[in-house]
Amino acid sequence: MNPDIIKERQNATFDVEKLINILDRGPEKTKRRREIESLIFNDPEFKEENANFLSRSERYDQAIRKSVNMILKLRQYGITDPEEIYYFKSIALRNHNEAMGVHFAMFLPTLYNQCDPQQSRKWLPLAESFQVVGTYAQTELGHGTHLRGLETTATYDPATQEFVINSPTVSSIKWWPGGLGKTSNHAIVLAQLHTQGNCHGLHAFIVPIRNMDTHIPLPGIVVGDIGPKFGFSEVDNGFLKMDNVRIPRDNMLMKYAKVDPDGTYRKPPSAKLTYGTMVFIRSLIVGEAAQALAKSCTIAIRYSAVRHQSEIRPGEPEPQIIDYQTQQYKLFPLLAMTYAFTFVGQYIKETYHRISGDISQGEFSELPELHALSAGLKAFTTWAANGAVEVCRMSCGGHGYSCSSALPDIYVELTPMCTYEGENTVMMLQTARYLLKSYQQAKAGQQLSGSVSYLNDAEQRRVQPQSVAARPTVVDINDLASLVEVYKLRAANLVQLAAKSIQQELQNRKSEADAWNSSATDLVRASDAHCHYVVVKLFTEKLGEINDTAIHSVMSTLALLYALHGIQQNSGDFLLAGLLRGTQVLQISVRIKDLLSQLRPNAVALVDSFDIHDNKLNSVLGRYDGNVYENLFEWARSSPLNATEVHESFHKYLKPLRAKL
Amino acid sequence: MNPDIIKERQNATFDVEKLINILDRGPEKTKRRREIESLIFNDPEFKEENANFLSRSERYDQAIRKSVNMILKLRQYGITDPEEIYYFKSIALRNHNEAMGVHFAMFLPTLYNQCDPQQSRKWLPLAESFQVVGTYAQTELGHGTHLRGLETTATYDPATQEFVINSPTVSSIKWWPGGLGKTSNHAIVLAQLHTQGNCHGLHAFIVPIRNMDTHIPLPGIVVGDIGPKFGFSEVDNGFLKMDNVRIPRDNMLMKYAKVDPDGTYRKPPSAKLTYGTMVFIRSLIVGEAAQALAKSCTIAIRYSAVRHQSEIRPGEPEPQIIDYQTQQYKLFPLLAMTYAFTFVGQYIKETYHRISGDISQGEFSELPELHALSAGLKAFTTWAANGAVEVCRMSCGGHGYSCSSALPDIYVELTPMCTYEGENTVMMLQTARYLLKSYQQAKAGQQLSGSVSYLNDAEQRRVQPQSVAARPTVVDINDLASLVEVYKLRAANLVQLAAKSIQQELQNRKSEADAWNSSATDLVRASDAHCHYVVVKLFTEKLGEINDTAIHSVMSTLALLYALHGIQQNSGDFLLAGLLRGTQVLQISVRIKDLLSQLRPNAVALVDSFDIHDNKLNSVLGRYDGNVYENLFEWARSSPLNATEVHESFHKYLKPLRAKL
Repeated sequence: MNPDIIKERQNATFDVEKLINILDRGPEKTKRRREIESLIFNDPEFKEENANFLSRSERYDQAIRKSVNMILKLRQYGITDPEEIYYFKSIALRNHNEAMGVHFAMFLPTLYNQCDPQQSRKWLPLAESFQVVGTYAQTELGHGTHLRGLETTATYDPATQEFVINSPTVSSIKWWPGGLGKTSNHAIVLAQLHTQGNCHGLHAFIVPIRNMDTHIPLPGIVVGDIGPKFGFSEVDNGFLKMDNVRIPRDNMLMKYAKVDPDGTYRKPPSAKLTYGTMVFIRSLIVGEAAQALAKSCTIAIRYSAVRHQSEIRPGEPEPQIIDYQTQQYKLFPLLAMTYAFTFVGQYIKETYHRISGDISQGEFSELPELHALSAGLKAFTTWAANGAVEVCRMSCGGHGYSCSSALPDIYVELTPMCTYEGENTVMMLQTARYLLKSYQQAKAGQQLSGSVSYLNDAEQRRVQPQSVAARPTVVDINDLASLVEVYKLRAANLVQLAAKSIQQELQNRKSEADAWNSSATDLVRASDAHCHYVVVKLFTEKLGEINDTAIHSVMSTLALLYALHGIQQNSGDFLLAGLLRGTQVLQISVRIKDLLSQLRPNAVALVDSFDIHDNKLNSVLGRYDGNVYENLFEWARSSPLNATEVHESFHKYLKPLRAKL
Repeated sequence: MNPDIIKERQNATFDVEKLINILDRGPEKTKRRREIESLIFNDPEFKEENANFLSRSERYDQAIRKSVNMILKLRQYGITDPEEIYYFKSIALRNHNEAMGVHFAMFLPTLYNQCDPQQSRKWLPLAESFQVVGTYAQTELGHGTHLRGLETTATYDPATQEFVINSPTVSSIKWWPGGLGKTSNHAIVLAQLHTQGNCHGLHAFIVPIRNMDTHIPLPGIVVGDIGPKFGFSEVDNGFLKMDNVRIPRDNMLMKYAKVDPDGTYRKPPSAKLTYGTMVFIRSLIVGEAAQALAKSCTIAIRYSAVRHQSEIRPGEPEPQIIDYQTQQYKLFPLLAMTYAFTFVGQYIKETYHRISGDISQGEFSELPELHALSAGLKAFTTWAANGAVEVCRMSCGGHGYSCSSALPDIYVELTPMCTYEGENTVMMLQTARYLLKSYQQAKAGQQLSGSVSYLNDAEQRRVQPQSVAARPTVVDINDLASLVEVYKLRAANLVQLAAKSIQQELQNRKSEADAWNSSATDLVRASDAHCHYVVVKLFTEKLGEINDTAIHSVMSTLALLYALHGIQQNSGDFLLAGLLRGTQVLQISVRIKDLLSQLRPNAVALVDSFDIHDNKLNSVLGRYDGNVYENLFEWARSSPLNATEVHESFHKYLKPLRAKL
């Protein structure tokens, strides 16, 4: 064990194990989590070559092997609880993805939710025994977030009682579905349903794409891998072009909408059910953004504790780089963010579970708010985490750029979360639509509840940017409740500004649609402020649940740092709305520096509390024992380019060059 | 040609070719640049497989082949002007690096600069004929920016008149030099010189590492590739461990410092000469950051012009995504930034050339300022570009994540610029040291000149954050000269705040060193504001050189957008210092939206003006003809994973799974 990191752990002011239990939601869960981990770590079949040293084809091969292995082991160990399965997989996958992920996350759930009883009897046994391996083909080359624009067609032919599936244009080629390229033999295809001369919009169809025995693509099908990406190298995201592919009528998923044998279309009863799933997936994404942050902070902070460089005081030994204020200022606010987002992820998931009983009984009253909130928080947290992971990487200097740090891997797996499951800007505008609607309702005298209740009295508070000095200032910058309040007022102010911008544009005779677009940047800012307020509020509320004094103290410091750092980064908003005076903003800068010093002795303990095992972290820089340099050397020596002492290019090019000059 | 992009070009209000000439610094240069391009594009020997489809070993092989090819072709074409060579290589390399880059950029120049006449006669012919291929081994596992901490030793043995080179610890292993792993047979090794029982600090030694004939590593040498990285996959960044490696006395580079045969050490006359080289390299980096931005904006803006998605006005066809205000708000400020940084890069390079005559004659008076400025601007521009490239990538939605966009490549090649040639935070603190020294000089009554002259009267202007409303406001937010002035005052204010923080810490009885560290975040902010001011000023001054009215108009709009967007992002600073009133900040938000609309018709023409040929850009999304979808499909089909219809993993894992369940 590196002596620096031993010393760091000795200096911690709280009991790490207790904080681990809090993050796990109870000591029993910690115990069970570690049991699951040790199943994987002790199993030789889960040993694997470092993915960074493999070609893409080898990585895909490794991922399929692992997928198959996980299926068998989960059955062998009798793990059936969805949370435990999720955790088991996240450990086995380390910083990478599951090649067959879409089969489990989308294909099977869609069958469960949208098959009629007869279809269930046919397809579920096939899919659960992996005779059928499937994917979910929605996105097309030309269309992502905007579903109505999808071009694939399914035209009903009553003569043969078949649907004829077509990709009528290049832009209609299905594109991106995970597992589509090489793995799946079936796809649930989203297509515009045409029957009896009418188009009835998007519906889901089961389309066989490969021979179940030989795996060779079927006639009319052009399928393949879409090529290398920034990350997700082990996943065969694919394309699918369909040319007059005929499928039986009952390959349309018919639990809700139906097409009769004669071609008569029957509408589904309601469309709101899909809302719930989206909320759930977005809560998972918030949790994953927090997890990516937790990994990144663990790596950067442990490395900063063992790396010595340059000098603070002339003549003294080189200090640990974590003692530089600039390094603390880069990393500690991100550590605070990690805790904040972890709690937010837990909150959304729990709220979803709390109201999911209502949802399944058709009671949707809380859903619109949760839907709007989860859309915004998905965008807010993934954007913030996206930038933060890169700050962590760069805070490790050159070594962060090496794949041995694991930080490049963490980044490329995190960053698409800003795009998938709802592109972030689109998400922010969805939240904004809810905020603006709420604002109008409040203005019309309706009493709002929930996270937007602050809009009830937004109209009374007039925005008076010019009179900053004149306003009474009651904010206590050391009091979290007081800070929650100013975040709330900032959000209210920005919602109001966005509403005014729209009003202004309408007065300039723009249409409502154009007024909305001409105010879109204001709307995004309003949503961002709303989400920021919610995060600060949830973090503050979480403190109330922590009984251990030492942990409560350090968590309060983190929450305060999160809140004050956010104000510092957005000080213009707070000054402009007259919520803070200039002197307070200056005090906040000083206070932040105090908080950095205060957190310094607990920094390593606070990342240890994420309890991310070395085997999962897979980072030389982030090793628990801090023995970085010797292991970097060992890692480098196993690089494939070192398999031979002399690379063939020497004989091919370098040596012959001498004769040519 | 895609009809959307034809329409965009028809709508432009200025002559693209004229702006290309301005950026090239004259029509003759444009002509010559295109001649060089066509040499490469028409040469079948420069045709190559898409690097994204190759393994790392294949990429390295391809890069060595290309390096050798460039050597031969440059001689064949008689290209000898350094600028032309630089350009030739940047075209041939596309978005990647030169495997033998360090031989040309560091090894040869060090020989030219630091060999005595006898050494020159021996080594230059060998290195120029590539008998000797070399690298520059400075950085160690444990030490990067802080050179004094390097641990490698060179101990003189007068008995044999040799130096004995050692890597005494794991952390002293040389790490990162490009071309060290597999390519080079010699390295210039930076080591602590010990002779006659004394250590004389870092000196440079030529160490043979591989047999010149067989390329096999020599005894005592452990050398290899450091393994995969985020990018630079075609470069064999290497490690080098030396165990009692003996080299002749005259392998120490002896132009300045010397060791006599008996071991007597002779000091060099001066150390300032290296300053100039650093300034030059940093000016190149600013230019490369601008070039990475130019590529990214070209891709994102062209794609945004041909991509249609969702709806602004219900019932109408899907709009080009460039018509969304949020998309414009993401991209147009970055377009403005690209022009700003391009001009800044040109300015530093020209200033360096202007004073380099003085430098070579030992006249250094302008150098400290230029050195401080280039350090800060290197950090300021690479950080900004780093974030900006990712914004461009994500603005392309999912397709930006595909390697076919080229944006992942551009990012991973750009991002290490934040770390190499001086880590950015360290750079900012170097600039801050110059600013603080200047501030103290001004306070002591000295009259400053150059970019810091604004500090002359900083003391008179007291910082009065609370009295925002009371101050007279003379800023015209539509007048660039007026905006340059407020950027200047903001910088002065932040320098003053940093100085006050240090003073405060000293009063709290901290040492000077600790006071500096406790104010480091303030110091970085001050440097950042200083650089921001310089960039706005240089962009504004550049406008004076543009005679074409149409181009002057659009460039003025860009400069205004750059300035106002910077104020919006940092509005707290301007409000806090009483430089702007709240109403003005609100007006700026509205004005920015106007500027976005104003720039909209010229967006494609403004990226066309960077004149980056498709062959160089290597991006499907950024194609000049806008034919994105059909070419994405073609690109994907050539992915190596599509070489066979059925991947072997089906037979190895997926099919056998069925039997196991």
